[in-house]
Amino acid sequence: MTSTQSGAPPSSPPRAVVVTVGDELLSGERVNSNAQRVGTALAGLGAPVARAEVVGDEEGAIGRAVAGALEEADLVVVTGGLGPTPDDRTREAVAGALGAPLRPDPELEATLRARFRAHWPRDVPAQNLAQALVPAGARVLRNDLGAAPGLAMERGGRWVVLLPGVPRELEGLLAGPVRELVRNAFARRLRPPHRRLVRTTGIPESFLAERVERLLPPERGPVRLAYLPSLHGVDLRFTVDGEVERAEALAWLDRMEEALDELGPQRFQGADLVEAVAESLVRERRTVAVAESCTGGVLAKRLTDRPGSSRWFLGGIVAYADEAKTDRLGVAPELIREHGAVSEAVSQALASGVRRAFGADAGVGITGIAGPDGGSADKPVGTVCYSVALGGALTSERRRFPGDREAVRERSAQAALHLLHRALAGRP
Amino acid sequence: MTSTQSGAPPSSPPRAVVVTVGDELLSGERVNSNAQRVGTALAGLGAPVARAEVVGDEEGAIGRAVAGALEEADLVVVTGGLGPTPDDRTREAVAGALGAPLRPDPELEATLRARFRAHWPRDVPAQNLAQALVPAGARVLRNDLGAAPGLAMERGGRWVVLLPGVPRELEGLLAGPVRELVRNAFARRLRPPHRRLVRTTGIPESFLAERVERLLPPERGPVRLAYLPSLHGVDLRFTVDGEVERAEALAWLDRMEEALDELGPQRFQGADLVEAVAESLVRERRTVAVAESCTGGVLAKRLTDRPGSSRWFLGGIVAYADEAKTDRLGVAPELIREHGAVSEAVSQALASGVRRAFGADAGVGITGIAGPDGGSADKPVGTVCYSVALGGALTSERRRFPGDREAVRERSAQAALHLLHRALAGRP
Repeated sequence: MTSTQSGAPPSSPPRAVVVTVGDELLSGERVNSNAQRVGTALAGLGAPVARAEVVGDEEGAIGRAVAGALEEADLVVVTGGLGPTPDDRTREAVAGALGAPLRPDPELEATLRARFRAHWPRDVPAQNLAQALVPAGARVLRNDLGAAPGLAMERGGRWVVLLPGVPRELEGLLAGPVRELVRNAFARRLRPPHRRLVRTTGIPESFLAERVERLLPPERGPVRLAYLPSLHGVDLRFTVDGEVERAEALAWLDRMEEALDELGPQRFQGADLVEAVAESLVRERRTVAVAESCTGGVLAKRLTDRPGSSRWFLGGIVAYADEAKTDRLGVAPELIREHGAVSEAVSQALASGVRRAFGADAGVGITGIAGPDGGSADKPVGTVCYSVALGGALTSERRRFPGDREAVRERSAQAALHLLHRALAGRP
Repeated sequence: MTSTQSGAPPSSPPRAVVVTVGDELLSGERVNSNAQRVGTALAGLGAPVARAEVVGDEEGAIGRAVAGALEEADLVVVTGGLGPTPDDRTREAVAGALGAPLRPDPELEATLRARFRAHWPRDVPAQNLAQALVPAGARVLRNDLGAAPGLAMERGGRWVVLLPGVPRELEGLLAGPVRELVRNAFARRLRPPHRRLVRTTGIPESFLAERVERLLPPERGPVRLAYLPSLHGVDLRFTVDGEVERAEALAWLDRMEEALDELGPQRFQGADLVEAVAESLVRERRTVAVAESCTGGVLAKRLTDRPGSSRWFLGGIVAYADEAKTDRLGVAPELIREHGAVSEAVSQALASGVRRAFGADAGVGITGIAGPDGGSADKPVGTVCYSVALGGALTSERRRFPGDREAVRERSAQAALHLLHRALAGRP
């Protein structure tokens, strides 16, 4: 292949182009979250994506896209089409475009057979062995989470990297072998941006923005600020371009972060509020149990998503029906009659009941109306009461959350978790 | 511009290319849901997207992408970059690429001023007037939901359509003026595809492919088949191009679908296995309760994700600690000592125990090792036992699921749901 255009100049950050493969992306049947995954990973490495392309499961189209990308880019990342079925054409297409014939890799084949036999009582089907084919001269990027490895080929200092389209496998490869490869291949050309994340929960984006703008110094130099809202809260991302010298960038970022110390209990540390809660529980050797009505397991799932949660999570009860609340958690039927199942009183009884039932240090109770039906004038859809029982103390809150059923459920679990976090820290 | 390549032949469906504009899409800060919106709309119209491209907010890159797309496509849809801020460059870029100078449109300007005054106590800022600029000869596509109209330009029978990137506005334009324009411009060339989805669970993609290839007739005429795997199963999507006459296409799709009747219990109907289970429970007026160990609420959450689940879901117990299994669910401690907490015997005791505790018709029990730690030679990470108690009958299975903690948990919940589905249907 002759290069008619060129990548970035040798001292600037490498120019990356992403090619995602899949008919289902063109037809709108699936959103292209893999392009986002690759974009995020490469931006973080300092090799930002300059252009992205999506093509269907057709060998010619894939080959043309990759050959075209290689003319302009230093790094071409291709995802999708490495599966075992006949519509997976990426391996052949790229092998063809780069003139690198496919050959079976004995080691990969052995891994594939072993992997298969560990899970199924038979040998690998013939068509799956395509996943052990490697273009001549390619480097194999180990995939611990699936059958298709990543493949990396070098052409005159430029790299083409093929990655599987299964999101978890893609993320594993991006975080491990791809990161290593990019760092080695482009060494001193990488300019990772300097970033700082400040995490908040329990305060809507517009209120938060007002407070943040008042707290931050008017002079912000090279710092850019983005608000990233989700159902679990709003993250503030401060960014300084990688061109700015490290010490200067960090000084600016420290100044911004310190200015936000006054945000108070709405701010938390950690990858996730569950991490913050888990660390507090482990540190204090405390345990927790949860009683959920409207969230129906959302909170228990989030807590147990975390590896090692068995150290501090004893269990939970999803008390969806009223009888479950009274029979399983000892909520007095009169309490439900008097206050209604969605009330702070019942949320407190749930929290105390589940704490007692599991013999935990802390109990959490959530009851509410997630919708779409079941609301009333007095208690519209989105009304949620949640409570934390810790030692002899009971705290509870009542809120009305916006959004659909999923939003209300996620927001409720997060709010209860936030209350637990504050209770554990002895903060109001 | 001279066309070096050509669009589709005059009687075939028009070839569409999508260009989405935005730095935030390349950096991974936002997922490209607009490309999905355009893909879905055009596929439904019978003008499928052949290729999609993403470029940053840079005039040169946008212009090159649009000019390149116009060389190969009959229809180029561009979204994003029509806002009022300096980083919105799409209008200028496309005007430049097509040699159509921008001119203020008096009617648009009047609308813009009126619109602005309705919301703010002042006149339109000068920079917002860019939204009233129209390339010479362009058609204005009215946007009732925002300030930036769509713009459509014709070049020798090919069309370039610029649309705003605000999702609601984009959807409004796609459903209204764009649909009309595409139908008029390509009239008899449009061929909406014929589609059929067959859903499966509990069988890995490669085994499924082998069985499907054996079951399907060797002669498949115009039918294309795609495998769409997820942690919950594999969907089979059959597609017949819109070229094929409707009655013939439907006959082909019926033939394929009927051939898969023999897939048996791995096949299910409905948007999701939860829907299938819910419909069966509602129909038979039955209720269910679940006891989860390693899935820690994943199954309860999935069941209660569904609106109206309170009609058939009574509740659940997350019995994470062994004491929770014995104290909350009456699992005999000897059973755990003898067989281990991860065993079919204990999964059966969990299913029976939770069925009894909640007075439900059916009980589901899951116990396993989700990892990353806790595995042994005998019971490696991914080993899961699950059971269904229904009436006097108990069924259980033991499996080893591949993947990380999240994958094992999702697969376990889905497998238990599948066992419940089969038990409810009286199938093995």
